[in-house]
Amino acid sequence: MKPAAPALRIRRVGIDTWRENVAFLHRNCPVVRAAGFQAMAKVTVRTDGRTIAAVLNVVDDDCIVGPLELGLSEEAFDRLGVAAGSDAFVEHAEPPASISALHRKIAGERLSREDLAAIIRDVAGARYSKIELAALVVATNQFELDRDEVLHLTEAMVAVGQRIDWRHDVLGAPVVDKHCIGGIPGNRTSMLVVPIVTAHGMLCPKTSSRAITSPAGTADTMEVLAEVELPLPRLQEIVRQTRGCLAWGGTADLSPADDILIAVERPLAIDSSGQMVASILSKKIAAGSTHLVLDIPIGPSAKVRSMPDAQRLKRLFEYVARRLSLHLDVVITDGRQPIGRGIGPLLEAHDVMQVLTNHPDAPQDLRQKSLHLAGRVIEFDPAVRGGDGWRIARDILDSGRALAQMNAIIDAQGRRSAPAGGLADPAPLSFEIAAPEDGLVVGIDNLRLARIARLAGAPQVKDAGVWLARKLGEPVRAGALLYRVHARHEADLGFARRLALQDSGYRLGVAADLPPDCTGNGVAP
Amino acid sequence: MKPAAPALRIRRVGIDTWRENVAFLHRNCPVVRAAGFQAMAKVTVRTDGRTIAAVLNVVDDDCIVGPLELGLSEEAFDRLGVAAGSDAFVEHAEPPASISALHRKIAGERLSREDLAAIIRDVAGARYSKIELAALVVATNQFELDRDEVLHLTEAMVAVGQRIDWRHDVLGAPVVDKHCIGGIPGNRTSMLVVPIVTAHGMLCPKTSSRAITSPAGTADTMEVLAEVELPLPRLQEIVRQTRGCLAWGGTADLSPADDILIAVERPLAIDSSGQMVASILSKKIAAGSTHLVLDIPIGPSAKVRSMPDAQRLKRLFEYVARRLSLHLDVVITDGRQPIGRGIGPLLEAHDVMQVLTNHPDAPQDLRQKSLHLAGRVIEFDPAVRGGDGWRIARDILDSGRALAQMNAIIDAQGRRSAPAGGLADPAPLSFEIAAPEDGLVVGIDNLRLARIARLAGAPQVKDAGVWLARKLGEPVRAGALLYRVHARHEADLGFARRLALQDSGYRLGVAADLPPDCTGNGVAP
Repeated sequence: MKPAAPALRIRRVGIDTWRENVAFLHRNCPVVRAAGFQAMAKVTVRTDGRTIAAVLNVVDDDCIVGPLELGLSEEAFDRLGVAAGSDAFVEHAEPPASISALHRKIAGERLSREDLAAIIRDVAGARYSKIELAALVVATNQFELDRDEVLHLTEAMVAVGQRIDWRHDVLGAPVVDKHCIGGIPGNRTSMLVVPIVTAHGMLCPKTSSRAITSPAGTADTMEVLAEVELPLPRLQEIVRQTRGCLAWGGTADLSPADDILIAVERPLAIDSSGQMVASILSKKIAAGSTHLVLDIPIGPSAKVRSMPDAQRLKRLFEYVARRLSLHLDVVITDGRQPIGRGIGPLLEAHDVMQVLTNHPDAPQDLRQKSLHLAGRVIEFDPAVRGGDGWRIARDILDSGRALAQMNAIIDAQGRRSAPAGGLADPAPLSFEIAAPEDGLVVGIDNLRLARIARLAGAPQVKDAGVWLARKLGEPVRAGALLYRVHARHEADLGFARRLALQDSGYRLGVAADLPPDCTGNGVAP
Repeated sequence: MKPAAPALRIRRVGIDTWRENVAFLHRNCPVVRAAGFQAMAKVTVRTDGRTIAAVLNVVDDDCIVGPLELGLSEEAFDRLGVAAGSDAFVEHAEPPASISALHRKIAGERLSREDLAAIIRDVAGARYSKIELAALVVATNQFELDRDEVLHLTEAMVAVGQRIDWRHDVLGAPVVDKHCIGGIPGNRTSMLVVPIVTAHGMLCPKTSSRAITSPAGTADTMEVLAEVELPLPRLQEIVRQTRGCLAWGGTADLSPADDILIAVERPLAIDSSGQMVASILSKKIAAGSTHLVLDIPIGPSAKVRSMPDAQRLKRLFEYVARRLSLHLDVVITDGRQPIGRGIGPLLEAHDVMQVLTNHPDAPQDLRQKSLHLAGRVIEFDPAVRGGDGWRIARDILDSGRALAQMNAIIDAQGRRSAPAGGLADPAPLSFEIAAPEDGLVVGIDNLRLARIARLAGAPQVKDAGVWLARKLGEPVRAGALLYRVHARHEADLGFARRLALQDSGYRLGVAADLPPDCTGNGVAP
């Protein structure tokens, strides 16, 4: 078909609009006038053989674009990938092919494998607007996806990304991974499990997310110690060299649709079980893992609050994993309180290094939980007898082999400069929350402590966060320190203090008030 | 609290981002570096006593903003309302106060009157991002609002807008209006009801929307004849002079929250009953109406497809209207096919003018339906006996008084120049769809015909659209013209033709195939 409009000259506009492609056209551009374009219309930009979708901003300033130019935001320009000055045509966008499937989901219908594949192709191809992405996320959150929809969503997410093949490296041995569904501050077990299991000789190409709604993800914490933004070829090289890595998953382009969806889920604080399963399993499969230990914490302020809910989620993970030929071992853990003492990237990195160095003050709950999970991963090794994993993991940690392995991984990824003798100190501004009365600590609200750490600046401000002086079950006297909040900016400190004074997140009481650990395998407080 | 960051100089950036406030900061701006801002972060811009929320775009080009400047998109600059060069502070936005209520709605909870008031205040104050707006629209669509939630949503929408008071003008007489829930192409009865009832002496300050998902709204069609973007004081003046108007509601700022929500509902094709009731009734109340006739069409391709659904929607409208002291008369009408012959602003204006001038070719269905609705409005007049309304309306139309009144309203709003002797011709490019066989027209798909007219360019291209040669129940011979499509651009014509050839939207059959008119008061085909 003949283009409806004259060609425009492409110009790169130095504006970073992040994931959203923006096209800038002058209000006097003949295309704007002829086609009746309005700001925020969706357009298709077509050049010699290449096409992108973009949102239109109308410009009144010739310095940004002239009437015969087409301006593209930085990411849109990179995505189109042609030289400045090339000819391009702009047209009203036809709606993405999958939009009728989205409308059916909004209306509450079940989607087919083909529907979900089409939706995820359009999401990964940046053909959905932010409005459509938000609608997709909310609709799939509200009308719970059934288990086959979750399976098909997972398959679709794998299909649009890169996929790593380790078969020539492991020659039939398992490629292992360990993942937690999240929600527990300070829970940095991956940074211990990876060194332990790779020291045991297993291949563990661990990719992690940055914080979505939490004060630190594993990638944020690892970034205190080493580079984590590793292009895929570099990541593969590191894993071949050290058997493991602790990298940010986003750079590796393993599940591009998921990265785009997460950017919408974050501001909406949505984390539905269907999206969670598809997001986690698609990334593991794309990373080439064959065996996965999955940690589901339960507690009154965890993502999962009861054993029946945990069992339901476990079955959904197992259903999808089995059909995708991923060996899955789900571990339900004690999620009644944060793990370790630090909350925030630097403070959590401190905890991890204390455990790795067998420091006498190392947080025991982080050590025990990491050994428990590492033991389960090690039992994927056909040469290890069931029940022996924990002991093997403990020997690796106590002997210093896990520390040596962590240092090898840090050096391979690129060590961050640090003060001599270890990590930097936490951010300089601080305030303390003290016990208002005598009592036993009987409640620590994960969500409250996470919000306080975020207001203090974590994860953007690496050395901001919360340091917990007391954990569940510990007795305190009135006036004793419960926790300290660190921040870099006065305003951040003020926000965090206001929230902490409203409600500290700690509850004091007597032994009978302690919530029970219903997992049977948690660490005693 | 002391601002956390240095002052920046405000600069107006000539970019139209429509309803979304965008703040442009240079990547080397100290605020960006110190606060760890990323593109698309939500920020608060604070200046001497004024505050707006905005989305951040990071800029790499000194020509757009320098490192010590704060650029604002055109609407953001106008909304902040201070001079270029003024000092401003930028901080991470605290989430809007109502965001926890939004999260509870996403989770399926019922919202209180205060929750809904807070949400609508934040929406009207432009404190919701597009993502949050889309989440709100989808969540309230999926977890059907209960009738008290709809009532509170309506109240909240009225509270944030302007409200017109006609009490000194009518001295106790009703202020009337007529509205259709939409979905039927060509259904321009308002442009006949307003002249008729104002000729009867009633006050009818009619404000209409532009097309949301249809090929023309009343405002788009009226705009062929007259100006419709009237500031509120001008609108009041016109109504005092002629007793009526046919204006676009958006300019009058009567329901600013609704205008923002509609911008999100449109691309998602969402039109839930709760949002529909709140949107329609809030605008009527804001416009100062005391009595409303509401048209709910039913048909196989109308918004409402069965009598039970129509009754349910009617009861919801009646519940909310009664509590807001609005007199409501709901009329359920025949929505089995488009009304009149034209679809698209100019073609629909042709139909209206033929009825007003009593032209022998005037579409009888448009005439009869308009008389029916106008009669119901006239019966709000306490001096008119029940059952007399239709005859009074017909006398006004047949005598030419409705035409004279329409001309008075057009002149008052500002007549658009037109060729001597009437309206312009439809757009010059066209194609025709002919009957593939002999038969009776037994189905005309409203949605299909609307899509064809939109692809042809309506409503942006005023003279594009569809002209129906045959209506339900008419016999045709193979090869006879069913409808003609008009477009201004070759590409538009091509899109429309492709869709029409896939499925014309017409079904031919025998008399027994005709869907029944289940309203009992529709116009016989």
